[in-house]
Amino acid sequence: MKLLRVGPAGEEVPAVLDESGGLLDLSGIVSDIDGAFLAAGGVDQVRAAVEAGGLPELPAGLRIGAPVARPGKIVCVGLNYSDHAEETGAEKPTEPVLFMKAPNTVIGPDDQVLVPRGSLKTDWEVELAVVIGSTARYLTGHADALARVAGYAISNDVSEREFQLERGGQWDKGKSCETFNPLGPWLVTADEVADPQSLGMRLWVNGTLRQDGNSKNMIFAVAEIVRYVSQFMVLEPGDVINTGTPAGVALGLPDPKPYLRAGDVVEVEIDGLGRQRQEVGQA
Amino acid sequence: MKLLRVGPAGEEVPAVLDESGGLLDLSGIVSDIDGAFLAAGGVDQVRAAVEAGGLPELPAGLRIGAPVARPGKIVCVGLNYSDHAEETGAEKPTEPVLFMKAPNTVIGPDDQVLVPRGSLKTDWEVELAVVIGSTARYLTGHADALARVAGYAISNDVSEREFQLERGGQWDKGKSCETFNPLGPWLVTADEVADPQSLGMRLWVNGTLRQDGNSKNMIFAVAEIVRYVSQFMVLEPGDVINTGTPAGVALGLPDPKPYLRAGDVVEVEIDGLGRQRQEVGQA
Repeated sequence: MKLLRVGPAGEEVPAVLDESGGLLDLSGIVSDIDGAFLAAGGVDQVRAAVEAGGLPELPAGLRIGAPVARPGKIVCVGLNYSDHAEETGAEKPTEPVLFMKAPNTVIGPDDQVLVPRGSLKTDWEVELAVVIGSTARYLTGHADALARVAGYAISNDVSEREFQLERGGQWDKGKSCETFNPLGPWLVTADEVADPQSLGMRLWVNGTLRQDGNSKNMIFAVAEIVRYVSQFMVLEPGDVINTGTPAGVALGLPDPKPYLRAGDVVEVEIDGLGRQRQEVGQA
Repeated sequence: MKLLRVGPAGEEVPAVLDESGGLLDLSGIVSDIDGAFLAAGGVDQVRAAVEAGGLPELPAGLRIGAPVARPGKIVCVGLNYSDHAEETGAEKPTEPVLFMKAPNTVIGPDDQVLVPRGSLKTDWEVELAVVIGSTARYLTGHADALARVAGYAISNDVSEREFQLERGGQWDKGKSCETFNPLGPWLVTADEVADPQSLGMRLWVNGTLRQDGNSKNMIFAVAEIVRYVSQFMVLEPGDVINTGTPAGVALGLPDPKPYLRAGDVVEVEIDGLGRQRQEVGQA
């Protein structure tokens, strides 16, 4: 299923995309799509309701919000594609590099991304986002890890490279600016993603294809990432893991690097997970 | 005022400490002490209720939870005391070093801290925690920054040094293990902390005084930290900032460094903010 949240920011209602592309309103049966929904077996509940029929239709043209309401945390994997590690001049990691993004960076897939004040190096990163469906703590195997995944979504892990790399130490400083995590349009349930390691992913800026990768090139696959992260922290329903970006970010391009400016348009796509479009503004 | 949350983990009720040391039950007037409470002027509401009198008393001996329910994020300042920067072999930072801690690390002040599986280097860090009371975004001045502070609490920023420093890159990996952020006992409202830059802070392990610092020795003061962080991310009511630790952590002691083991007892104190006591267990 493709779950989503539609309506004005902060007032989204839960919905599901039906097979004809129409939107069915879930607000009569669940209050939101969030950690509590996932923990309580909401996906099965929605599936049963869709099969039973009779869910009311929503009008077309509504704004799409992030498909999961405010995650408890966003864990990111750095340098998880060898071509991206190479373009940034970093060594290929021998175990996953982890960092975090503030949960209030999450916006809808087509919302405006803001260049932070004082920023000259705002960059893009298409990523496969994993949404956790049940608590994960010290997992021992990959099947167990995949069983904790509720589904997948597109994430744009927007990054400010000066803040991240030149302002004293830790990457988080350049990863948590407001609007820095467009997510969605859909939470595609795991049963609809036959192989998370064979998804083409693309990102365009002003119509120019900048990233053209595939999740088959991840250094650490989704199952290993979830297992690994669970050794260091407890993952909870609704948590998001951004699994890394392939080559093609502005940081890796020749000077003058085409960092984002107000007026730019970023489009992002992953096979089977839909498409995003962000206009860039100035904070 | 000293606000707190008491009762079994996950079922805490909001309370306030009265001047005689008794606990008054706030559950009849507010649902919890959290971001929504702070954003809605809950502190003033509680103050009026206390002044009006008649709040029911709670029995003594209840477990104390963290004084703020699950923060939206925990931002940490690294190397913010020059003696601590020195003991870890790091340069004194020229601007605040920021990293993050998963919000689900927060536990009550006297709850058990767990040494993670595979850990040999679990360490302690007494810190002054700042709790944000209203949204902070691109603040320009220090008075404005302090006006966004709801209050203060004790934080033990428990850290696993191998995970933090020897396992591939970013510190977050050693900061987010379960139980790694004892918080409280109280949220002491800002009006009761005359000067956040003159608070003595101490930490003992098994009765041995290990840290004996004072917030006057912070490299970046609370007002500057809040102003600075707001340039890089939006701070929201209920967010917590751990403002750094003074010298005396295990990492800075001579070999064999006395990292925490199951059975150890950690006690933590900051002037006016109360006292914590954690028994250490094994995950």
